[in-house]
Amino acid sequence: MLTLYYATNTCALASHIALEEAGAAYETRWVDFGAAEQTKPEYLAINPKGRVPALVTERGVLTETPAILAYIAQSYPEARLAPLEDPFAFAELQAFTNYLCSTLHVAHAHRMRGSRWADDPAAIEAMKKKVPQSVGACFDLIERKMFRGPWAMGDAYTIADPYLFTIARWMEVDSVDPSAFPRVLDHRDRMAERPAVQRALRSEGLA
Amino acid sequence: MLTLYYATNTCALASHIALEEAGAAYETRWVDFGAAEQTKPEYLAINPKGRVPALVTERGVLTETPAILAYIAQSYPEARLAPLEDPFAFAELQAFTNYLCSTLHVAHAHRMRGSRWADDPAAIEAMKKKVPQSVGACFDLIERKMFRGPWAMGDAYTIADPYLFTIARWMEVDSVDPSAFPRVLDHRDRMAERPAVQRALRSEGLA
Repeated sequence: MLTLYYATNTCALASHIALEEAGAAYETRWVDFGAAEQTKPEYLAINPKGRVPALVTERGVLTETPAILAYIAQSYPEARLAPLEDPFAFAELQAFTNYLCSTLHVAHAHRMRGSRWADDPAAIEAMKKKVPQSVGACFDLIERKMFRGPWAMGDAYTIADPYLFTIARWMEVDSVDPSAFPRVLDHRDRMAERPAVQRALRSEGLA
Repeated sequence: MLTLYYATNTCALASHIALEEAGAAYETRWVDFGAAEQTKPEYLAINPKGRVPALVTERGVLTETPAILAYIAQSYPEARLAPLEDPFAFAELQAFTNYLCSTLHVAHAHRMRGSRWADDPAAIEAMKKKVPQSVGACFDLIERKMFRGPWAMGDAYTIADPYLFTIARWMEVDSVDPSAFPRVLDHRDRMAERPAVQRALRSEGLA
């Protein structure tokens, strides 16, 4: 049995959806960010990074969304969530998930987590101010260059899709106009109709 | 034939070393960041992100260091640069490389690339100021919790090692005291003695 530690409206939703798509046997544990549970010794014993997601397996704990997503795809090959037999296609998929993690999510994080990178309150405000532009530039690259359609990587639905969906749900709170990115928006709408996505959203109290 | 696009003193060194360790047939192309070549149409046609590394293969271009490193490991299995037959161990390895990419490298980038996340010059200065602390906190986590020894993931040398080595070379310019992280420092010293590392460093004019 796998256990996914998540917090509401975080990137952990991507792993949650992937577990549903894979038909995995798992349970979830909610980490209360409002009570700063992720900074308490109990949670740090699970994930010393103090972040979510963390996926507890019988062999140990996995962190980092792209790593967890690839693990789910490799552990449930019958779900066909990644091109596991083709290193180049797998690398293209990983380039997509890594971009979401290290560039798009990082840009987004400057809205609420600026204190990771500066102490001066004015600097933290200046970071917030640029989020619509920096996050928008990422979605522009995805819309124009990275997104293949109908799914992120083309004809096949992959682990990139729940991850893109998860981050695309933040466009409005990041003051990014979704209508500027019609392909990403259409993808988000189609994702929201998938039963696996609806189950994960309901489980997190988001639908 | 693979072609690795790199710039000096960037994370592209990790992929460069991995190609050497794998015994891959490849060539390198230097991208002149001083002349802002990465922003010119010629380079953007290769990598629209305007970053390095980019690995040009006969099937297309790969970006993002963790994705390229996994591709090298999977493409040259005889080099044994990743536990390819074990999804959990592979995921642990990917969690390590993803952390370097999305947390440690991102913290480092706030020293020279603050304009990605704020426009105000005072905010950019405030970001620079916090780099020793934010980068140091990442190395502290690696030293205490993530690094297994003698290599990053334990007994086996993997793609995590050239990546850790590459970023650990930046400690001094980030005003992080290497002596506070003796295991990471010892790893860096041992890495520098490997013939593959020396070949990559010499090729980039760094040794």
